[in-house]
Amino acid sequence: MPRHEFSMDMTCEGCSIAVTRMFNKQGGVQFDIKLPNKKVSIDSEHDVDKLLETLGKTSKAVSYLGPS
Amino acid sequence: MPRHEFSMDMTCEGCSIAVTRMFNKQGGVQFDIKLPNKKVSIDSEHDVDKLLETLGKTSKAVSYLGPS
Repeated sequence: MPRHEFSMDMTCEGCSIAVTRMFNKQGGVQFDIKLPNKKVSIDSEHDVDKLLETLGKTSKAVSYLGPS
Repeated sequence: MPRHEFSMDMTCEGCSIAVTRMFNKQGGVQFDIKLPNKKVSIDSEHDVDKLLETLGKTSKAVSYLGPS
C-alpha cells in the first residue's frame, strides 16, 4: 500500500493525541506519528487530497511532503 | 447572549491555535481561550450539545463546565 508523509503543526503530546484520536474516529487507518519531526506517515490507497482533508479536520496546519 | 464555559485538553500554543483555526472556519463565533486554565468560553445561542460537537471537531478531549 502506498505510504504518504505529511508535515503537521504538532508541538506537544496534546497535539499528537488529538491527531491519534481523529484517526481512531476514522477507523482502519495505518499511521505513524513522529512528534519531534512534526511528521505523520499514512499507509493508504486514498489520494493525497482526501488524506489532507482528513488531517485538516484537526484544524492543524498540514502539508504534503511526498511518498515515503 | 448566553456564555458557556468548556474545559479542553490544550497543553501548548499549537493546541490553542488549532482551536482558534477551527472557530475561524465556523465563522461568527465569539470565543475566549484561556490556555493556562485549559478553558474555552463561548458566547452563543446554540445549545450545549451543538457547541460540544463543534469543539469535538478538533479531536481534543472536551467537557462542559457550565454557564459563566
